[in-house]
Amino acid sequence: MGEAPSFHEMWRDLAPVGRDTRTRGYRRFAWTPADAECRAWFRAQAEARGLTYEVDRNGNQWAWAGDPTAGDAVVTGSHLDSVPDGGAFDGPLGVVSAFAALDELRRRGAVPTRPLALVNFGDEEGARFGLACVGSRLAAGQLTVEAAHRLRDGDGISLPQAMEAAGYDPDAIGPDPERLARIGAFVELHVEQGRALDLSGDAVGIASAIWPHGRWRFDFAGEANHAGTTRLVDRRDPMLTYAETVLAARREAQLAGAVATFGKISCEPNGVNAIPSLVRGWLDSRAADQTTLDTVVTAVERAARERAERDGVDLTVVRESFTPVVEFEHALRDELAKILGGHTPVLGTGAGHDAGILSGTVPTAMLFVRNPTGVSHSPAEFAGEDDCVAGVLALADVLEGLACR
Amino acid sequence: MGEAPSFHEMWRDLAPVGRDTRTRGYRRFAWTPADAECRAWFRAQAEARGLTYEVDRNGNQWAWAGDPTAGDAVVTGSHLDSVPDGGAFDGPLGVVSAFAALDELRRRGAVPTRPLALVNFGDEEGARFGLACVGSRLAAGQLTVEAAHRLRDGDGISLPQAMEAAGYDPDAIGPDPERLARIGAFVELHVEQGRALDLSGDAVGIASAIWPHGRWRFDFAGEANHAGTTRLVDRRDPMLTYAETVLAARREAQLAGAVATFGKISCEPNGVNAIPSLVRGWLDSRAADQTTLDTVVTAVERAARERAERDGVDLTVVRESFTPVVEFEHALRDELAKILGGHTPVLGTGAGHDAGILSGTVPTAMLFVRNPTGVSHSPAEFAGEDDCVAGVLALADVLEGLACR
Repeated sequence: MGEAPSFHEMWRDLAPVGRDTRTRGYRRFAWTPADAECRAWFRAQAEARGLTYEVDRNGNQWAWAGDPTAGDAVVTGSHLDSVPDGGAFDGPLGVVSAFAALDELRRRGAVPTRPLALVNFGDEEGARFGLACVGSRLAAGQLTVEAAHRLRDGDGISLPQAMEAAGYDPDAIGPDPERLARIGAFVELHVEQGRALDLSGDAVGIASAIWPHGRWRFDFAGEANHAGTTRLVDRRDPMLTYAETVLAARREAQLAGAVATFGKISCEPNGVNAIPSLVRGWLDSRAADQTTLDTVVTAVERAARERAERDGVDLTVVRESFTPVVEFEHALRDELAKILGGHTPVLGTGAGHDAGILSGTVPTAMLFVRNPTGVSHSPAEFAGEDDCVAGVLALADVLEGLACR
Repeated sequence: MGEAPSFHEMWRDLAPVGRDTRTRGYRRFAWTPADAECRAWFRAQAEARGLTYEVDRNGNQWAWAGDPTAGDAVVTGSHLDSVPDGGAFDGPLGVVSAFAALDELRRRGAVPTRPLALVNFGDEEGARFGLACVGSRLAAGQLTVEAAHRLRDGDGISLPQAMEAAGYDPDAIGPDPERLARIGAFVELHVEQGRALDLSGDAVGIASAIWPHGRWRFDFAGEANHAGTTRLVDRRDPMLTYAETVLAARREAQLAGAVATFGKISCEPNGVNAIPSLVRGWLDSRAADQTTLDTVVTAVERAARERAERDGVDLTVVRESFTPVVEFEHALRDELAKILGGHTPVLGTGAGHDAGILSGTVPTAMLFVRNPTGVSHSPAEFAGEDDCVAGVLALADVLEGLACR
């Protein structure tokens, strides 16, 4: 067991991994060389602290202080992969803070009475294969092996091919109930992806719930034609229907106090002088409760259908994914609030997390660290150093409170 | 000199070249194998008719009946390349009809008193390098050698590299005034890209003018952020501004009796759960006159700027190309009308053509063949067999009237 790298040293070593020199954003996609570098970093951190390192059947990395098989373990961690051109904090803040919080416990001389584990879940962002939280979903049995084997990236490479190329065994993946049963509490620390803490003036908060959210693909099918010679009345232009639908989504989200976004589009044939034959737009929508979310999506689809009728466009709407509301366990949440003091704000979030996936199986909680701009999934994502340190101390308090008393 | 292939045989041989099996559309892009097959077909047609075959410095193919150097030649033809997933007629109808009209002249025993030439202009559609009419533009000096050498396709291959790979000499390209000076009249036959002839009930029409048209790139720059967690009021979402601009373009075109189309889009980072940082849309707009076109584009830009202000989005508008109105030579147009009879309709078009490029240098005219659906630049593009035959006979009449009296 060597000298544990400091908080600063951990950030310094992670900083260049998978960073695009042009955008300054991170491209740490599952099972790529950048991902392998992150994983090597995690393993080195575990070994520098004398922790028991292991990789589970789904490629998630674990570092244990205490007996991994004893049960009732307190687990903390997050993920190291990123969205395309993501920021430095979404994921890594939870992993770096986990190691730093363990160092803080040791500095305090706190002696764990329950096993402690640190975890790096694989492929949380789903940037490569289009499905988020693959590592935790597989472990929790929320993604079947067959469905996982069918996942393909933009180059047509399957998840099994990608895992194998990275040196992992794709035939081993699947539900891991025995491992999850050994976890007594999972606490994930994460940079806030919004401005609630900035507005309330707090460095750290506790999660109440993850909003229900879903993704819907809108296929607008019209008729390709010459942009210079086709009379407006003879057109079946799906770009018009798409445009109306984008504006309807913003309007309905605003009315309902929800969010709705068209952030991804594909267009065929995508030629300057051609009326498109097909415009495909993806709607991401989330709300505090299911009824509100249903109201928004139904209204957007109605507006799209009305305009499609006018434009002579055929509309197909496919729900590609859906995650119901996640209420974090009240007992654990209350325990965190007690440990951190009554003033700590409790807040909901629109973002999905491994903690949300595991919450159906394991008592789960989350801590958020203030994000002064609210920006995330962007190179401009930021958290101040004082707030990051406050997060580490809060996480250490939580680990001490849960595992050392 | 062999037996000249019939009209049906010419179509049969061209039909499979560069056709995509999935879309049933054509992908005959400049300097690709499909283009080479089209060129081999042209050469075989020339040789089967005992014509003098040559390729000019810009890669355009010529087939001469009579002395190429005598001057005052009557030239007809069009192009064989296509847009992505283009139809069978846009281009090839003019080339096939040229050979068939020559056969018809010979059947009639008409003896040319002026040299006759058939031409296949290279890279008319600009599908690969983004600039239309490269072969005729180079010849007419409307595209400099330097600018042509800078053209690159989507894979980063330059025009010189592509020409060289296809066996042509990119160092030879440039203005060809001596060649153009030998042309007394150029008549291009083309399938109509609209429904004017269908509405008037005529198989063949004569072109009056090509509408002025241009392409403008609208760059909407916002801020990438998390689609689930960023409050609506904190967003700078350029997709909203784009959507508003698309609808404004349709509205303004309708008010002005012009056309305006957003058919091409790119989006960054183009992720389902990311608010875009950049949406780039291309506006194609055309109108019967310059003032109307200016009015439309100015109004679209104004609407875009107003919305950009509301959305916190930065807008840059770049005019990527512009072609002023082309009025075909009145004397030649009147001669065609006299040859074809007073009832032949005279009509404008929104599409660009090699004939439009050459019209500044050479007396130029166009014949259009009825398109019952108006659809073009699409696999559904269509012209009836009777109308195609009527086009051949009209072109034969024109060639006989111009060159054999």
